[in-house]
Parts: sequence; structure tokens; C-alpha cells
Amino acid sequence: MRCMVLRELKNPLVAEQREPLQPAEGQAVVRLHAAALNRRDYWITQGMYPGIRLPVVLGSDGAGTVVRIGDGVPHHWSRQPVVINPGWNWGDDPRAQSGEFRILGMPADGTYAEEVVVPAEYLHARPDHLTWTEAAALPLGGLTAYRALFTQGQLRSGQSVLITGIGGGVATCAMQLARHAAGRVLVTSSSDEKLQRAGELGADAGYNYRQAGWARQLIADHGRVDLIIDSAGGEGYADLLELAAPGGRIVSYGSTAGKPGNLDLFKVFWKQLHVTGSTMGTPDDFRSMLELVQRQTIRPVVDQVVPLEKANEALEKMRDSRQFGKIVLAIDSSSQ
Amino acid sequence: MRCMVLRELKNPLVAEQREPLQPAEGQAVVRLHAAALNRRDYWITQGMYPGIRLPVVLGSDGAGTVVRIGDGVPHHWSRQPVVINPGWNWGDDPRAQSGEFRILGMPADGTYAEEVVVPAEYLHARPDHLTWTEAAALPLGGLTAYRALFTQGQLRSGQSVLITGIGGGVATCAMQLARHAAGRVLVTSSSDEKLQRAGELGADAGYNYRQAGWARQLIADHGRVDLIIDSAGGEGYADLLELAAPGGRIVSYGSTAGKPGNLDLFKVFWKQLHVTGSTMGTPDDFRSMLELVQRQTIRPVVDQVVPLEKANEALEKMRDSRQFGKIVLAIDSSSQ
Repeated sequence: MRCMVLRELKNPLVAEQREPLQPAEGQAVVRLHAAALNRRDYWITQGMYPGIRLPVVLGSDGAGTVVRIGDGVPHHWSRQPVVINPGWNWGDDPRAQSGEFRILGMPADGTYAEEVVVPAEYLHARPDHLTWTEAAALPLGGLTAYRALFTQGQLRSGQSVLITGIGGGVATCAMQLARHAAGRVLVTSSSDEKLQRAGELGADAGYNYRQAGWARQLIADHGRVDLIIDSAGGEGYADLLELAAPGGRIVSYGSTAGKPGNLDLFKVFWKQLHVTGSTMGTPDDFRSMLELVQRQTIRPVVDQVVPLEKANEALEKMRDSRQFGKIVLAIDSSSQ
Repeated sequence: MRCMVLRELKNPLVAEQREPLQPAEGQAVVRLHAAALNRRDYWITQGMYPGIRLPVVLGSDGAGTVVRIGDGVPHHWSRQPVVINPGWNWGDDPRAQSGEFRILGMPADGTYAEEVVVPAEYLHARPDHLTWTEAAALPLGGLTAYRALFTQGQLRSGQSVLITGIGGGVATCAMQLARHAAGRVLVTSSSDEKLQRAGELGADAGYNYRQAGWARQLIADHGRVDLIIDSAGGEGYADLLELAAPGGRIVSYGSTAGKPGNLDLFKVFWKQLHVTGSTMGTPDDFRSMLELVQRQTIRPVVDQVVPLEKANEALEKMRDSRQFGKIVLAIDSSSQ
């Protein structure tokens, strides 16, 4: 089976041909039709992730067909079209992942491959309304967005939501999931083009955070915001404390712009704010996300589909944040 | 009636004799037997509080007897021993106070006086088991501690709680309220004497935060903490992010040590933390606090009782954080 392997940090992935994978007890082998990129994959190639072990097949997102099952795996999984929950070994506490928590695609070999080994408990029937490409674009972004919005963010019907950095996979998925629950969905980006695209996809308004006074303008247009979903942090974080409505929530799932400057705790306590962290999600979060996606026939936004062998170019595009939505790798091009 | 008046910022309060107060419609006049100090009072004397209007009688905490009632006030309040909820005009949203929210004792004249005017809705029967002194020590600290622990902090039975800066009025009250709900109550102080006193009052362990490595030691002794109640912020805040258990909560109700340095958002999201602000509390918080105090016959810790006329010396003691628990002003010394 073909796969793209990270052998050395800061070097391109290398195409390899390997023997077909064999499932151990409780495992299934999924023949992948499509995989998708996540920023985590890029951080790993740069050595900016804890506990890196090489060589490794990257890739947390995949959709495909179960082709082999190990002992103890229910037979109904055979030939089943599936998506894979990439969050493994969450543990017993729904509040936070255990020390054993792992994400598919390092240390376990991931989805930039024709085949991947998956413990059966992380297999889920592919939502009927999704193509292989769309199904592959869903898992990590959908899971992260769902937990940030609902489990940690406690989004209530009618509330306003601000999603920063629209275009990123999680942000774009969050916009789609929030549309069906929130009263108003606002987005930010440094690109007017992305803001326009977000508007076409249903965002109620967009603000270019490079523009001075954007936060004041947002407040003038829409008032302060009940829930903010952010993965940037950095100096712009001070604006978020200002934008949050009294009693509002700011959920952070990343800090790509670095640490915020001095946190204004006075705003936090006087406004009774909730600054909450969120990473990935529980198996229940994953199931709830799939249910919402099916109920509302949500289709993840796919930026581009490229062949598996072009994974290196795809990673560069993601590094430069040129995408809007998910970059998908086509693995079995006959079945897109 | 006698009262202590702030006429000029950064100057001592001045003793005055005024005409007896008259209640307007819906108001009652309470003849105070005791009042208590809060850090807010000191900030106001220093001009470090928004919207200061002078002259003003300071004081948010008081207990006394209703002596006059205005039209529309139920007659059962007449001659009733009461404590006063100092958080006025919270508004309709339990998540956060409205723009109309005010705290008794600026702009409205407060409790450093023989009499105070109070809208009847903020009168509550004095808990039977409390002396006047103890009753006066309860309202603001109890309200703030209750909301921080339960409403915002979501304290669950059996969880561990860390309360920083023990000795302060809110912190000491939080320790007492938490004791009856939490599995374990830990405290910090810069004073070994205060830590010992906290131990006598039921804290399970205390740590001197001036001692290098105290946070590591706490983790070694007790593991990480489910809920942290903090009013310091500042550079020590980084320790709190480390001390919080995965999925844990840090509730801030003040920032006496200034803004925290760079907030480590990675810890916030990877550990799924909740950093929550809390100020004062709703009328429901106040009622729930009183119920808990009565049910568990909790007695607020009183550091010292001084006559009303010694309010200036009392404010200096509080400024220097020399107290453990509340400093109370005796107003009608015949009835302590």
C-alpha cells in the first residue's frame, strides 16, 4: 500500500510502498478513499509538537471502507463506509483527556496512506449525504469545533458567536455548526476574500482584523458577543476581552499568534467572563457532532482536492494559510 | 446620627453628626449595630475605583434593626433584625450584572454610620445563630465567595479547592463555605501565622507562596486542584495554571497583584481549563449563601471589632493585610 512518510523533520514527506496492514484483536484496517490535512500535521513536520517519533505516516482525518477486521470486531463493520474518530484513549473524565490520549497520525501511523489501522471503537458509519472527500474533511475539525462551541462554549440557541480566523479548517467547520444553533455568526480574517466567501456560506458579517477599529465597528453593528471561538491568542486577544458580552465566553483551541500580552483580569472578573480551553473532544462529542452534521445535512467546506502524492505542496499551502476550508488528499481517485 | 464621611480622597474619614434618615417609598432605614470593612472601601479612599462621588459614607456591610419604613414596604420588616445585601440593581441576566449595578457604600451612602437607607428588597432576616458582629461580617464577603465557588466555580462535592491569600475577607469566607462542600480545602498565604490559623479553622493544608517550589510541593502532597479561587492575579498566576487539574477551574474575583504576565494559552486549551471571572453576586446568590450559612451554622471569622470612630485605623490595618477575617466596626456598642 502507498503512503507518505515523514522520515526527517523539516524535510518533505517521502512516498513509500508498504505491505498491506493487518489488524490485531479489536482493530480494523480501513482502505482510505480520502484524507485531509490539519495544522497539527505541519507542526509535526517542523518538530513543533511534543513527543515526536519518526518515521511516521501523518494524517488524522480519513474516510474509507473497512477491508479487514481483527478478532472481536463486530462483522457489520466489514465493507462498511466509515469516518474515523482521530481522538484516541480520551479516558474516563469528560472534562479533560487523560495522559494516555493520542491523536491518530503520530505516534500511530495516520491517513496519508492507502490503509490505516484503527481500533474498532473509533469507526463511525460515514454520514450518507457526504462524498468521500467531504467525509474525510470532517473528523478532526468537526470534533474540535463541536466541543469548542457546545461542550466548552455552552452555545445556546439565539446567542451570537464570533469565530476568528475564518478559512482554517476548525474555524470554517465551527461556522457551519454554529449557523444551525446560534442567533448570529460573525467571523474575522485578514483576507477580504475569505470574509466574502464566509458570507456566501452563511456568516452574518465579517471583519478584517487588520483594519484599525474593527472591534469597535463590530460592537457598533451587532453589540457584544456571547461566545467567541479563537485559535490565535497573541496580541489580538485583548480585543476579544473587549468584544465579549458580560457573562460571555471565549473558547481557545489554539494560540497560533503566541501568548496574549498581559491578561486584563479586571475585565475578566468585572464582566464575569469565562475563558475556556478546548482541545479535540470526547467520543460523545464526536457522536454528537456526527448527529448534528446528519440532522442538518452539513457539508464540510473543501478548499481543494489534491492527489496523495502532492501532500508536500498541500502542507505548504496550509502553512501559508492560503486555504479556505479543508485541503483533502484523494487516495483512491476512482471513488471520489 | 453619627457617621464617618470620606470628604477628600487620600484623607482620613471625618466623623459627622447628621439628621436621622428618612425612607422614601419602598425603602427602609436600618439602625446599624455593626458594619464591616471591605478592600473596596480602601480603594475608594485612594481614588482607585471608577465613578467616585464625594462626600460619601463608605461601607457595604452592615447588620442592624429596621427602625423606619417607607410606603409600600411590608410591615413585617419593622423592628426586624436584618443583614443587607450590598449588591443593588443586578438586572435581569444571571450571567452578569447590568450597567445599573451598584454596591452599597458609594454612590449611595453606606454602613459606616448609625443609620443607612436600604431598598426593602435588599433586606434579609439576620441568621439566628449570628451575633451582630458576625452578621455584619457576612454580606459582601459571603456573597462574593458564594458566587465564586458555586455559581461561577461550579464546585462539586468531593472536589479539591485551593483558596489563595487566606486572611482576606472573601478568601476566609470562601474557605468556610467550601469546607462543607469540597473534598479538600487548601490555602495559601505569605504568612505562616495565617496558614496556621486557617488550619485551626479547618483548612486541610496551607502553603506559603513566598517559599520557592510551593506549587510543586502542593501537587506532590495533594495532586492538582479542581477549583482555584484567586484575587491576586499578577506573576503568581502562572502557578495557578500549573496547579489546576485537567478540566479544572480558576475563578478570579480580583487582581490585587496586577495583571498576570503572558497567559500560557497552550495550558488553557490543552488542559481544557476554565478561567472564570466573578464579582459580587445576584440576589439569588445572596439568598443561597444565607441558606448555606444557616444550614451549616457557619460563623464568619472576625479579626477585630473596633468602634466606628476608629474606622481610619481599621482601614490602615486592612491596607497592610494584617487582618485574618473581617474587621468589624461596632456602632451600637450596647448590642454586640
